[in-house]
Amino acid sequence: MIFLGLDPGLQSTGWGVIEAQGNRLRHVANGQVKSGADEALGQRLTQLFEALEAVIAEHRPEAAAVEETFVNVNPRSTLKLGQARGVAMLAAARSGIVVGEYAPTVIKKAVVGTGQADKGQVHAMVKRLLPGTVIAGPDAADALAVAIAHAHILNTAKAYERVHR
Amino acid sequence: MIFLGLDPGLQSTGWGVIEAQGNRLRHVANGQVKSGADEALGQRLTQLFEALEAVIAEHRPEAAAVEETFVNVNPRSTLKLGQARGVAMLAAARSGIVVGEYAPTVIKKAVVGTGQADKGQVHAMVKRLLPGTVIAGPDAADALAVAIAHAHILNTAKAYERVHR
Repeated sequence: MIFLGLDPGLQSTGWGVIEAQGNRLRHVANGQVKSGADEALGQRLTQLFEALEAVIAEHRPEAAAVEETFVNVNPRSTLKLGQARGVAMLAAARSGIVVGEYAPTVIKKAVVGTGQADKGQVHAMVKRLLPGTVIAGPDAADALAVAIAHAHILNTAKAYERVHR
Repeated sequence: MIFLGLDPGLQSTGWGVIEAQGNRLRHVANGQVKSGADEALGQRLTQLFEALEAVIAEHRPEAAAVEETFVNVNPRSTLKLGQARGVAMLAAARSGIVVGEYAPTVIKKAVVGTGQADKGQVHAMVKRLLPGTVIAGPDAADALAVAIAHAHILNTAKAYERVHR
């Protein structure tokens, strides 16, 4: 099964695609969509939407997930994050993919084993789980972590169903 | 010239279309796109996007604008607002329309004459400027106010250009 993880942001949106068969993971692709602050907001959102549409068309993920996070710095940055996040979720939903949302602690727990892991530990574990992968940057690493967490959680849910059916 | 005003929200997005010829305004259409809190976020954003795409396809606005506002209640509501706002701006931008953004005080000043006007005064002025219009609700009234403000500001800018050319 192909999983897409998303780490949305207006300046940079990370995305990561992995294939999971049970507990076995394989890296497929990852990247970061950037947009310039000097461009109009509508243009930036259009670039983001079209780039993610292209990623989805190329890799045809069957499931997607996004981190349920919000910048707490100020309302203006939270609004910007929301705009990018809405467009990223729309790109996935319009392709008929159900988009899961996970709290950051849930993602950390699924990837590293503890909800209190820091970003460095998460990125190190992503590299260990997907050996040899060239990662486009920190947002792409976060997106791969979301994809890994989603695959892991769905796999655990399936195993539970098999045992308790 | 046909103007689209948008008042985005995840639960309810208001939209209003007017035609402006110089200082003369004519109501074209208005409405509110609602989405249920029990549906998945991706679905809600898709409904909003597709409803606005249909409005734009039907009325073919040449300019659009949105209020540059953010809920300051808590980061979670600001994030939700941002998601709806991003999708609304995307729908306009994807149709090749440049989307203007105005601070609430700028809209109030353009519609009522003072940036300190309250919502009731803004809605009363919208009704007076577009006599006989049946308004779908408060979000549609806000959206019509945004459209009126955008038409007024562009018209003032054009008049200025004519004088100072």
